[in-house]
Amino acid sequence: MNKDTICAPATAPGGALGIIRISGPQAIPVADDLFHAANGRKLASQTGGNLTFGTIHSSDGETIDEVVISLFRAPHSYTGEDCVEISCHGSSYIINKVLEELVDSGCRMAQAGEFTKRAFLNGKMDLSQAEAVADLIASSNKTTHQMAMSQLRGGISSRLSQLREQLLKLTSLLELELDFSDHEDLEFADRSELLELTKTIDNHIARLAHSFETGQALKQGIPVAIVGKTNVGKSTLLNALLKDDRAIVSDIHGTTRDTIEETMDINGIQFRFIDTAGLRKTDDEVEQIGIERTIQKIKQARIVIWLLDQRPTWSEIDEMHELSKGKKCIYVHNKADLIDIHKFNPYILPLSMISAKTGKGISNLRKRIFEEAERAGLTLNANEIIVTNARHYDALTRAHSHLQRVLDGLHNNLSGDLLSEDLRLTLDTLAEITGGQITPNDVLENIFKHFCVGK
Amino acid sequence: MNKDTICAPATAPGGALGIIRISGPQAIPVADDLFHAANGRKLASQTGGNLTFGTIHSSDGETIDEVVISLFRAPHSYTGEDCVEISCHGSSYIINKVLEELVDSGCRMAQAGEFTKRAFLNGKMDLSQAEAVADLIASSNKTTHQMAMSQLRGGISSRLSQLREQLLKLTSLLELELDFSDHEDLEFADRSELLELTKTIDNHIARLAHSFETGQALKQGIPVAIVGKTNVGKSTLLNALLKDDRAIVSDIHGTTRDTIEETMDINGIQFRFIDTAGLRKTDDEVEQIGIERTIQKIKQARIVIWLLDQRPTWSEIDEMHELSKGKKCIYVHNKADLIDIHKFNPYILPLSMISAKTGKGISNLRKRIFEEAERAGLTLNANEIIVTNARHYDALTRAHSHLQRVLDGLHNNLSGDLLSEDLRLTLDTLAEITGGQITPNDVLENIFKHFCVGK
Repeated sequence: MNKDTICAPATAPGGALGIIRISGPQAIPVADDLFHAANGRKLASQTGGNLTFGTIHSSDGETIDEVVISLFRAPHSYTGEDCVEISCHGSSYIINKVLEELVDSGCRMAQAGEFTKRAFLNGKMDLSQAEAVADLIASSNKTTHQMAMSQLRGGISSRLSQLREQLLKLTSLLELELDFSDHEDLEFADRSELLELTKTIDNHIARLAHSFETGQALKQGIPVAIVGKTNVGKSTLLNALLKDDRAIVSDIHGTTRDTIEETMDINGIQFRFIDTAGLRKTDDEVEQIGIERTIQKIKQARIVIWLLDQRPTWSEIDEMHELSKGKKCIYVHNKADLIDIHKFNPYILPLSMISAKTGKGISNLRKRIFEEAERAGLTLNANEIIVTNARHYDALTRAHSHLQRVLDGLHNNLSGDLLSEDLRLTLDTLAEITGGQITPNDVLENIFKHFCVGK
Repeated sequence: MNKDTICAPATAPGGALGIIRISGPQAIPVADDLFHAANGRKLASQTGGNLTFGTIHSSDGETIDEVVISLFRAPHSYTGEDCVEISCHGSSYIINKVLEELVDSGCRMAQAGEFTKRAFLNGKMDLSQAEAVADLIASSNKTTHQMAMSQLRGGISSRLSQLREQLLKLTSLLELELDFSDHEDLEFADRSELLELTKTIDNHIARLAHSFETGQALKQGIPVAIVGKTNVGKSTLLNALLKDDRAIVSDIHGTTRDTIEETMDINGIQFRFIDTAGLRKTDDEVEQIGIERTIQKIKQARIVIWLLDQRPTWSEIDEMHELSKGKKCIYVHNKADLIDIHKFNPYILPLSMISAKTGKGISNLRKRIFEEAERAGLTLNANEIIVTNARHYDALTRAHSHLQRVLDGLHNNLSGDLLSEDLRLTLDTLAEITGGQITPNDVLENIFKHFCVGK
């Protein structure tokens, strides 16, 4: 199927080292053409799992670099094919020149994710694990890393395989019923037992599908809206919150890719802070639009920080409650140094006191934000399977609706042969996630085009 | 001497793979603490030159990544010490986490260039070769790559060792003269022979020192000034010249680091184009300053492109010749479509005709620029040793002046013991280049601080 040999740089430009990957049937002879091992031995004569030092030469005899070559022989490689990794100096000239020579020798430049695609096609990993590779590379904090690593190590795959077994049990029970339906004297698992089993499976599928919302929040950062009147110090608060974290934020590539909001890490969980326009009472139509937008942003948020700089009126308190219904709320009084705390009734509004200017109370506020995320079920428990992938969510949702039809059928006492079609569809739909069925090429293309080159 | 074990990322952030390097006496046990090999074998029980697949775990049991470990045992490693390279997924979280665990296990984060510094201190390479490593990584075109590779493979070192042998021969001849100076009946190599030998050596040293100017031009880009009256199309010409090359320029990191000028590659050689203010005749004092600046830029250039858009007057031709005396000049007529070529006398001014707007003549002009660089001796011949390093240039210049004193002494018939001190200084000064003498720590620090981390 994969007759051609592919090559690509597997490291970002600008480092001390650059790694060039080659995979395919010609990987070893092609590398041997360019490589002169210091020990004089051809790679072709060596076993896999070895490192060899030597020089890479261009076809016109120029010494391109002194390199170390890692040799992996099929099937003991990432792709399952013969693989060669050239570890050279991280010069753009050297890396381009080596790739040029490889292409001249008949290699093809790999597409994004093509090494991982081959690993999947060669049975080295299932599709959900292949997808986890991209998530793992993109992971920039403890939580996204943990979710990707769990998926890579087969977390979702094994959960799905449990569901599959239960579905197969259900199928065989139904088939038993069909096969012996003429023998009225035989006893079968009664329908209520089948119903219970179906419900249990469906609950698991629904719970997995439901976890996608949490998965999305954890992957993109838990949305936190900072809301308050104009000039109450929202930007100062945001800067104070980000202060210690700013260096980390700027270190991580692509964290704010899809959003203009600021993100930060608290205890390994990413939060995405959504700044809002200042709220103020107005009859002005234009200002009203601004307020509508803030209301929208509150709706998108999971946590709302209400920022105050003076004692709110009763109607203001009502309005805050009303606007952020169903959200985890944190009421924060800024400019703590300027007010008398006893003026506030903590039973009405439990306030966090901060001074964004002096930094007082900020680390406590961070703690509060993390606790509210915990209360909202947005932290990760060990061994918990969280769906982070939209493709998986889509399949789970469809599997859930197929199984709902089975449930309806059981309720309506439909015969087994009418139920088995929907059961088969449920099984097939779940199998899409791990690629257990043959996966259409356009689905594969869509999955791997989001990868980086060289992986 | 190097008791501690160092670690660093050796690849730039953002790639599919990330490599973490560990070097030092504890490299293998420290890696074994974090690493669970899939085959269950400890790295400590394995021979060097092997690849092992497995997982990296944090001290609290979290699986950080699935990795491949390259094991190098002293002295068969880059640094000459035990070395471990961890090839993990290129996630910022993973790389930081692994480094964190390594530091917790007693490793120290490596300073810039510290792996190469250890390679030098452990006798794996001499100092000029160590310096070539940084140049090689920074190399972004054929010429800078070739110069760095030649130096890495011992080009300068072997030339210096030839010079050293000749200097030692000279020393021994002088010592012979001293030892037997009482025996008036013995014949010695006569002074004229010593003089010839000294002159030959000095010529080689002077030639090497002189090559630094070429080396600098090749390393930083050969300076080309584009000069002409205002509105003659200098920027359009620059853009036209850069057009095909622009993508390459922007791909290469740091090419324009030290200069605001535009650089481009022609046949593997880098040129640095210096834009100048338009020249025009004026009595205005302010404009006169601008013209002075242009004259300065012409002085810095090796090649001057005079851009014209109409027939120059005789006095203008004289002025151009005067201003660019000693430079390689290319006279270019822009807006070629608008003029009659026969109006120009090619014997007075051989003109290249271009249209920066339509691109006509641009590729010919590129060829001309390259040819002028060749004529100026600014291209690289195979096996030619070019000094590119200011430290080497400094040492060669000092060695040259020590040897000049030897020459003066020979001319003035000074006795051998008076000459031998300067000869010794010449030898010691040349030895500084390869670090043959013990190199002071501040010199080493100054050399390696310009490296990237992880090399």
